[in-house]
Amino acid sequence: MDTYLSHEASFRRILVQASRSYEIIVGRDLLKDCGHWIRQIASPCVAVIVADDTVDGLYGDRVAASVEKEGIRALRYRFPHGEESKNPDRLFELLEFMAERSVTRTDLIIALGGGVTGDLTGFAASVYLRGTPFIQIPTTLLAAVDSSVGGKTAVNLKAGKNLAGTFNQPHLVLCDTDTLKTLPEQEFACGMAEVIKYGVLSDPALFRLLEQEDARDHLDSIICRCVSIKKDLVMEDEFDTGLRQLLNLGHTLAHAIEKYSGFCISHGQAVAMGLAAVARCAWASGLAKEDCSGRIEAVLGKYGLPVRCDYPVDRLCQAILKDKKRSGGTINLVIPQRIGDTCLHRIEVERLVEFYSSDVRKEEKDSKKGLTK
Amino acid sequence: MDTYLSHEASFRRILVQASRSYEIIVGRDLLKDCGHWIRQIASPCVAVIVADDTVDGLYGDRVAASVEKEGIRALRYRFPHGEESKNPDRLFELLEFMAERSVTRTDLIIALGGGVTGDLTGFAASVYLRGTPFIQIPTTLLAAVDSSVGGKTAVNLKAGKNLAGTFNQPHLVLCDTDTLKTLPEQEFACGMAEVIKYGVLSDPALFRLLEQEDARDHLDSIICRCVSIKKDLVMEDEFDTGLRQLLNLGHTLAHAIEKYSGFCISHGQAVAMGLAAVARCAWASGLAKEDCSGRIEAVLGKYGLPVRCDYPVDRLCQAILKDKKRSGGTINLVIPQRIGDTCLHRIEVERLVEFYSSDVRKEEKDSKKGLTK
Repeated sequence: MDTYLSHEASFRRILVQASRSYEIIVGRDLLKDCGHWIRQIASPCVAVIVADDTVDGLYGDRVAASVEKEGIRALRYRFPHGEESKNPDRLFELLEFMAERSVTRTDLIIALGGGVTGDLTGFAASVYLRGTPFIQIPTTLLAAVDSSVGGKTAVNLKAGKNLAGTFNQPHLVLCDTDTLKTLPEQEFACGMAEVIKYGVLSDPALFRLLEQEDARDHLDSIICRCVSIKKDLVMEDEFDTGLRQLLNLGHTLAHAIEKYSGFCISHGQAVAMGLAAVARCAWASGLAKEDCSGRIEAVLGKYGLPVRCDYPVDRLCQAILKDKKRSGGTINLVIPQRIGDTCLHRIEVERLVEFYSSDVRKEEKDSKKGLTK
Repeated sequence: MDTYLSHEASFRRILVQASRSYEIIVGRDLLKDCGHWIRQIASPCVAVIVADDTVDGLYGDRVAASVEKEGIRALRYRFPHGEESKNPDRLFELLEFMAERSVTRTDLIIALGGGVTGDLTGFAASVYLRGTPFIQIPTTLLAAVDSSVGGKTAVNLKAGKNLAGTFNQPHLVLCDTDTLKTLPEQEFACGMAEVIKYGVLSDPALFRLLEQEDARDHLDSIICRCVSIKKDLVMEDEFDTGLRQLLNLGHTLAHAIEKYSGFCISHGQAVAMGLAAVARCAWASGLAKEDCSGRIEAVLGKYGLPVRCDYPVDRLCQAILKDKKRSGGTINLVIPQRIGDTCLHRIEVERLVEFYSSDVRKEEKDSKKGLTK
């Protein structure tokens, strides 16, 4: 990771070497020069800027002006914000939008926004004319530390979240950290759920920083740290058949919670609940080396995130079995053994309910013991 | 190419080494043992058999029985036959069908049928859970020699044919040549358009065979020859950025003709028209070394295929410019220089009408000369 000075702004560059090699640029005030960065990697005639109505209103003009300054024609595709837009109809509306305007596969598609925009646009780019270059400009903390990096794209099916998608690495990621400073409290908290996940996953120092300081004061370095962890796992296992699955820490339950709530509970909140639950259950069922659930719950709470979910465990487990993480009759769980130390643990699908209710059973047992003392 | 004897049937195996290595098995009566072949490459719990109503009626039971004999549960997805089914709605209906039934990414998807089925199913397999194994069982000549091999998948958009899709190599191709013998005359002819294309493209001996003999008497060896030509080009250029474009011989105009006809003209008929037209125009515009258009028209006619299209050239060229072969302001044409010798020729999009009307202008000039003699 190097730090450079240019355009009177400091930024850091992280190189990802996967099936496609690309850079992640993290720094302040990058949006107004995004055309300059795009020119470094491509010479498109047209750039299709995909953004939801909120983000388009905030940053669409700035990005369009910057690419047009470089002689690239800007086309803008705008869609209603929210997870509901990550669906097959929206995907094909975007594809038809580009086809009607004769966008070619030497042009460029830009995902400007959060995770929904990145997933939807990345999917569209991977199938439009069987593959058209695209870049990610994340404008939420969640997208910056997670969804904009690693090449997973998706839309939701009626049967579940992210069930259709591709592996499609972007050609460039531009993370303008100024855009994160104006995020609503709630949306910032959702990104923090993923940041906390990285600490639990493999970085005790990051976790301690989150406990002891205010993350807002260390945003650039926190993003770089998270992205580097993700990058290492993606480079190790791009197509998610082994170690990359560790990134799903807290997510197995989270996807089920989101779905059961009819997507009223946001991804970040669900990840927080999933992370806290798997930490409690890992300890209660004897799979963890230390009980780190107290520290995890405390830091989640500090950043305004929930740690309990009162949905029925058996119904959530039914939803998990529809999830793509299942493989035949078993499923891989990501188990936090202690802060910074996580492993994969394969269990029979029949034992899923038992695992996810082990924390409640343990609490009941403990309280019984307390009563008989 | 090796020839083996097994299950009392002779068959040939062709190995394709692309981003995925897989075999193409060509031979008689393979359907009834398809479960046996599948077992050689995978151990799925479930096989989803995708077929249109016609093919499902003819062969669905036989394929299902063979996989179930191997302990694999057969699920059947059946859809209305015809090019209109190759659309986004059908694609997502198939994806929801699999998701509802909790098909996992260690299961298997089988495309049983012609080009529409193969393209649609291959696309679905490449995006279902971000990639699920699939095999091709072509039951038309067109699918056997062309669409089942090479990994191109697609659905049509409103704006044009095959504008959304992926590169997704199958895990196995099983070509039972017995299924081709009961094809309707019209459908067999459509496959012959692609067979003739391979002769023009790079195989003068194959072309002579088609001129001198009846292709039906040499079906197995003709299929193997075509598939081998395609295989070599796919292995050279899997992602269609260079030499693989030679396979589009006749197709630039063909896609436009299909679209302009509202898909009343079939792919094979359109390829025949496109092939004849590009041969005439290549000679008329001075890009060919020999005038091979007469021989091409004769062999197309022999197999019941059309060689002229009376749609307006300027309208067809407008449709071509919406096609994905365009790249910025130029387009690659595939030019037959003589039988068995073809090259790529890049022209400005503005010169497209001039090229595709050069044969008519030449004929007018020739007939004028005749009058003034």
